[in-house]
Amino acid sequence: MNTDHTALTDREHAVTTEVLDSFEATPDPRLREVMRSLVRHLHAFARDIRLTQDEWDAGIEFLTRAGHITDSKRQEFILLSDVLGLSVLTVAINEPDAAGATESTVFGPFFVADAPEIPLGGDIAQGAGGVPCHVSGQVRSVTGEPVEGARIEVWEADDDGFYDVQYPDDRTAGRGWLRSGAHGGYRFWSVLPAPYPIPHDGPVGDLLAATARGPMRPAHLHFLVTAPGFRPLITHIFLAGDPYLDRDAVFGVKPGLVVEPAHHTDTAAPDGSHPEGSWAAITFDVVLAPDDRR
Amino acid sequence: MNTDHTALTDREHAVTTEVLDSFEATPDPRLREVMRSLVRHLHAFARDIRLTQDEWDAGIEFLTRAGHITDSKRQEFILLSDVLGLSVLTVAINEPDAAGATESTVFGPFFVADAPEIPLGGDIAQGAGGVPCHVSGQVRSVTGEPVEGARIEVWEADDDGFYDVQYPDDRTAGRGWLRSGAHGGYRFWSVLPAPYPIPHDGPVGDLLAATARGPMRPAHLHFLVTAPGFRPLITHIFLAGDPYLDRDAVFGVKPGLVVEPAHHTDTAAPDGSHPEGSWAAITFDVVLAPDDRR
Repeated sequence: MNTDHTALTDREHAVTTEVLDSFEATPDPRLREVMRSLVRHLHAFARDIRLTQDEWDAGIEFLTRAGHITDSKRQEFILLSDVLGLSVLTVAINEPDAAGATESTVFGPFFVADAPEIPLGGDIAQGAGGVPCHVSGQVRSVTGEPVEGARIEVWEADDDGFYDVQYPDDRTAGRGWLRSGAHGGYRFWSVLPAPYPIPHDGPVGDLLAATARGPMRPAHLHFLVTAPGFRPLITHIFLAGDPYLDRDAVFGVKPGLVVEPAHHTDTAAPDGSHPEGSWAAITFDVVLAPDDRR
Repeated sequence: MNTDHTALTDREHAVTTEVLDSFEATPDPRLREVMRSLVRHLHAFARDIRLTQDEWDAGIEFLTRAGHITDSKRQEFILLSDVLGLSVLTVAINEPDAAGATESTVFGPFFVADAPEIPLGGDIAQGAGGVPCHVSGQVRSVTGEPVEGARIEVWEADDDGFYDVQYPDDRTAGRGWLRSGAHGGYRFWSVLPAPYPIPHDGPVGDLLAATARGPMRPAHLHFLVTAPGFRPLITHIFLAGDPYLDRDAVFGVKPGLVVEPAHHTDTAAPDGSHPEGSWAAITFDVVLAPDDRR
């Protein structure tokens, strides 16, 4: 090479400076900040790894495939953000844990805004397959006051690992919402969730395979809990003993969100019912942080 | 906020560490290096700007639109790389300027591998509209030896700002290749190129508009010059006085690539022909670096 290293680095930095300057006149100051930071980090990445032309081509091809597999039911760019840990980092930035409150985790793509309301003690399964599971607990504040009337949205995959919206019919199953009752208590029936793979027949699946990572998520039950005066809580509960707890493809697991289900057979359930065969019970208290954000 | 700043930052960095660790078992060491660097820089970007959930949503939406507008004729992800300066940075990393050699610049998406061969002094316009332009010069080494038989590929937009491949018919115009002759000399007829906008009816165009940047590229003529024993040269020539020289949407301009066209009317051309009306002449010597790469 006829160019010494300093001159080479100087030229590369001159490119970055020119691109940064091009965003100087951006009217929205926030957009200017975001774009300039994006350029700075994107260029630093390319310089650090000495990005080759073939690797640049591969990156363009990857994004193109991701774009073409994405439609109204499949969102490969969200999967990409998930497996790169950007989704959970965004949660960490925007929903920082409040002392004593239940931790938050990723929202995921399977929430539905108009899920059915169920009564306290009702069943969200509505045909979703799996071992019946009774979930109960208390909604309270970090200072211990019970929160009555909190809106609790829950949703989950069935024991085949699919959410209702992943089936071609228009079923609604494994989702619903209820309100906490006296003393903040809540309870409902569902099914024990099962581990499932994120969709992995696209470029993100190829990336996971090439990096010796698996597509599996540990079994989990989604919660979105809202109540006036409190920060909305988006979280999951996971099951102790799940083989994927330490290798969640989307990095959603936190120790405080892992619960120990109790397994029962042919005994009376907490609500006095007598489920046929095996059933499980989970206890999970929801501790809400005060809404002290701007 | 109930969490102090250190704990907050610690948690964010713990997320990054967990994601970095997940790539530890990648069999290909280069892929491992690339993915770990990507995660490090992507997460640093999100942390630095305190990425909001709405901004994350906007990013997913942007990439989705880019994917859906991309097809066999339109490549929005390359345009994105171009306007973020990543394309020209990749050239800077992989084609560092050799002392005394002609500078390289972006390749662009409009090269065609099987362009027609033209004789020395022939015409590449083949119907492309514009003022006739005679281009000539010498191909030589950095030590001054003429390079005979170098393969010179040239391609350009017409004076409406379109390359042949952008028209719906199958025309071939404004492109061709020839070989340098005795003493490394080359010459051909073309048309004076015109400034043109990169395609800007998609998300990249929206980004340019939102950041008060224009979509225009200054007029240019593409060169790809190859000869045994020399590094391939991918470059453009630009025209002095072009209003977009200091605001190329893709950052391709380098001072050494700007030439001063001579304008003539009703005079004999260098090859003895008498073009009707106005014509221009450009002189551009091509200096090739020795192929000293691994």
